[in-house]
Amino acid sequence: MTPRRSLPGRPRHIPATSAKAPRDQVLDAAAELFVTRGFAATSTREIAERVGIRQASLYYHFAGKDEILAELLQRSVRPTVDKIAKIEALVPPQTHATALYLLALIDIRTLTEAPHNVGILYGQSDVTNSEVYAEFHRARQELVDAYGRLGLKSASPDIAADTDARELGEMLMHSIEVVTEIRNGGKTVTPQRANRIAATALRMCDVPQETIATAASTAAGLLAEFHHVGSTW
Amino acid sequence: MTPRRSLPGRPRHIPATSAKAPRDQVLDAAAELFVTRGFAATSTREIAERVGIRQASLYYHFAGKDEILAELLQRSVRPTVDKIAKIEALVPPQTHATALYLLALIDIRTLTEAPHNVGILYGQSDVTNSEVYAEFHRARQELVDAYGRLGLKSASPDIAADTDARELGEMLMHSIEVVTEIRNGGKTVTPQRANRIAATALRMCDVPQETIATAASTAAGLLAEFHHVGSTW
Repeated sequence: MTPRRSLPGRPRHIPATSAKAPRDQVLDAAAELFVTRGFAATSTREIAERVGIRQASLYYHFAGKDEILAELLQRSVRPTVDKIAKIEALVPPQTHATALYLLALIDIRTLTEAPHNVGILYGQSDVTNSEVYAEFHRARQELVDAYGRLGLKSASPDIAADTDARELGEMLMHSIEVVTEIRNGGKTVTPQRANRIAATALRMCDVPQETIATAASTAAGLLAEFHHVGSTW
Repeated sequence: MTPRRSLPGRPRHIPATSAKAPRDQVLDAAAELFVTRGFAATSTREIAERVGIRQASLYYHFAGKDEILAELLQRSVRPTVDKIAKIEALVPPQTHATALYLLALIDIRTLTEAPHNVGILYGQSDVTNSEVYAEFHRARQELVDAYGRLGLKSASPDIAADTDARELGEMLMHSIEVVTEIRNGGKTVTPQRANRIAATALRMCDVPQETIATAASTAAGLLAEFHHVGSTW
């Protein structure tokens, strides 16, 4: 029988494998403060205090508050953007609606599992055009473009003829971001609800119900290929 | 010939008819500061300074910062909510899709013309469950319910059977709120774009294209009945 390694009298000991790296602890604490109090009202001193480190140590990891926000925002889009190529490669040829459905589902999961609902921080004008956010804006635009491209290919011909890909992409992506509002209202985004949101996105492109049903069942089978650590669905 | 009333040497004189009431000046200044800097980072002293009044005078109009935000948020939903009954009364009987289209169009116009894009302030967790915001939350819920009710009545039978009215209402309303994001990106919401957004909302309910086309032309004719002061479309 293996002896238990944790000893009495050391209640604060956390096994190294489950302890978060200091950088991640800073991100966690900052996310919570930004979301509950607002970005402008939060100082790096308060973030450091929350983590239990000195402000100087925080600056070892991040140049400032904007750099922290930029990384948090990246974490609300990057996990999805990084999967676009794989999504398009894995779905059967010419089943753009299935690719769109799968993209929506993965994006919903990213937003559902982002710590402290950081997706909500986007759209606050604090996210300026400063160079700090340039990489985030590029990643977000890549996602808008993927939504627009797959949406246009999935759309019925008369919708497609009258639609600008980027405008459609913005509408699709915004409709998926209802997830941040659901979380903000204290509700849970279940896989069932995620599927209803994804199906609604496809209807926005005038995809017929039978095609949506096929897309949903194919996407459900492929989702396992995109498992990410700590995901509950 | 009527003599001109404005005298040289009084360049700051503004005719009483065009000058905004002090209460509205406070709302204007606060909206701009909340949107550009964030609610938490703005003080009533700064708002008063921006208007050019003393802080004590500001408190004559508003009990505090939350009361100002609550009224600004009301102005992003109230003009639409107040028209729900009239919308449902004016459209031809049983044309729920037309009512939904008209509601969407009027809501888009409200969000497009709200000063300083105040619609964007919703969803920031500053809008707490405090009693100050109760009236706003009730108005917003009324709008969600109207979207859900009209959306469910417009939907095809198999969508309707599988849909919760409140969930559909939230998705429809959220999709319309893409307007705040378009404005935040510095772009203009033209009447053409407004019509594309409204049509997309109807597609979310699986409304057939021909019905959407009829709804669009009927709604365009009825929109004049809802003209509001200062509207550009």
